[in-house]
Amino acid sequence: MKQDTGKFIVIEGLEGAGKSTAVAAVKSWLAQRGITDIVCTREPGGTPLAEKMRSLVKEVSDETLADNAELLLMYAARVQLVETVIKPALARGAYVIGDRHDLSSQAYQGGGRGICLQQIQQIKQAVLANFSPDLTIYMDIDPELGLSRASARGELDRIEQQALAFFERTRHQYKSLVALDPHAITIDASKSIEQVAQAISLALTEQESRL
Amino acid sequence: MKQDTGKFIVIEGLEGAGKSTAVAAVKSWLAQRGITDIVCTREPGGTPLAEKMRSLVKEVSDETLADNAELLLMYAARVQLVETVIKPALARGAYVIGDRHDLSSQAYQGGGRGICLQQIQQIKQAVLANFSPDLTIYMDIDPELGLSRASARGELDRIEQQALAFFERTRHQYKSLVALDPHAITIDASKSIEQVAQAISLALTEQESRL
Ligand SMILES: Nc1ncnc2c1ncn2[C@@H]1O[C@H](COP(=O)(O)OP(=O)(O)OP(=O)(O)O)[C@@H](O)[C@H]1O
Ligand SMILES: Nc1ncnc2c1ncn2[C@@H]1O[C@H](COP(=O)(O)OP(=O)(O)OP(=O)(O)O)[C@@H](O)[C@H]1O
Ligand SMILES: [Mg+2]
Ligand SMILES: [Mg+2]
Repeated sequence: MKQDTGKFIVIEGLEGAGKSTAVAAVKSWLAQRGITDIVCTREPGGTPLAEKMRSLVKEVSDETLADNAELLLMYAARVQLVETVIKPALARGAYVIGDRHDLSSQAYQGGGRGICLQQIQQIKQAVLANFSPDLTIYMDIDPELGLSRASARGELDRIEQQALAFFERTRHQYKSLVALDPHAITIDASKSIEQVAQAISLALTEQESRL
Repeated sequence: MKQDTGKFIVIEGLEGAGKSTAVAAVKSWLAQRGITDIVCTREPGGTPLAEKMRSLVKEVSDETLADNAELLLMYAARVQLVETVIKPALARGAYVIGDRHDLSSQAYQGGGRGICLQQIQQIKQAVLANFSPDLTIYMDIDPELGLSRASARGELDRIEQQALAFFERTRHQYKSLVALDPHAITIDASKSIEQVAQAISLALTEQESRL
């Protein structure tokens, strides 16, 4: 765990997969190794301006948000967060734990909405070039189970209100992309909170050489 | 002036060039030809959601908006307007008069901010493919004169507060792009309101075959 610049660890997965819970597990694993400079982010959002973009994407409205407008808003929020928070934190050597990042757009807008992956990657490349996480932890869950966990928390937002088939497509895309990404690992998120936390800790220890 | 689908006429130019004034001149030229189904749009904005994106771009904030985030917000608003307002209007045969459109991003974000044109066109292509105006009327003006007109109107927004050099670069880019675009014409916007209106009317009559 020697490093010049910081490391960027991203948690991905469907609603209610346990991403926010996983962030805490990563944080405590880092803390056990004496790491204190840790920045937690969430996407879309994470800066005052990016949170306003998040609201535009999340709020239920009479006006239908065009799929490509949704995609561009997601990237606008991402670029704002990366440029103003994540890159500066990494540059000073901090660990950044991201609650969602680029893979979410590829899975939700690509798989869920059906926008072609090449188009999404073209936009990604244009505005973020090769910026990418050191490690992505994908929390795999059946959408029905995830949504039942998430809905226990309160009202569902515009994205959470999508049909089950939307999330099935999103999950399928997540799995395909994670399988191709040497920097990504999968955690079975259907297990208990304790079992999931343990699996994350174990996985981080296995991946320690890259962190 | 026979047409199957509608026509999209765009007015471009720096702040205070007289774009909103030019929209009125185009409208009255069309009205003289018995055209009644006319839709006027402005960018960024033109739908409730796109107007919220406009606010994010225009509002003065403590947080610096990253150049690429600004670019993506502009395109998010544009896509929303094109998909929900412009394309449906054109499909039913209406004339759409746009107060700004894609050329603004190429001039302001490309020339003003210095983002490479290829990157901007990559994003444009990804989300709007070959959608483009039938005619663009570029209102050319010295930025100092334009800003003095605009500032007489009230407080300057975040874009209007840019340095003069920003607008010089934007104007230069506008001119280069208009010179290359067979669907674009230039109007000398430094003349009086009456002279400008007459020049627009004359130019439209010259371009009548494509309208
Ligand atoms: N492994 C688990 N088993 C059962 N419940 C869990 C598990 N992990 C998290 N939860 C609970 O499910 C709910 C959603 O978890 P959490 O907020 O971590 O998910 P999330 O992926 O961050 O959701 P969202 O995408 O909506 O932000 C919370 O109430 C949390 O306590
Ligand atoms: N040719 C002209 N000569 C003098 N004043 C003009 C001329 N055209 C417009 N104006 C005045 O200048 C001001 C700006 O014009 P207008 O609002 O049409 O510009 P604009 O390009 O739409 O500006 P903005 O980019 O800020 O929307 C208005 O007060 C308008 O009456
Ligand atoms: Mg969460
Ligand atoms: Mg105007």
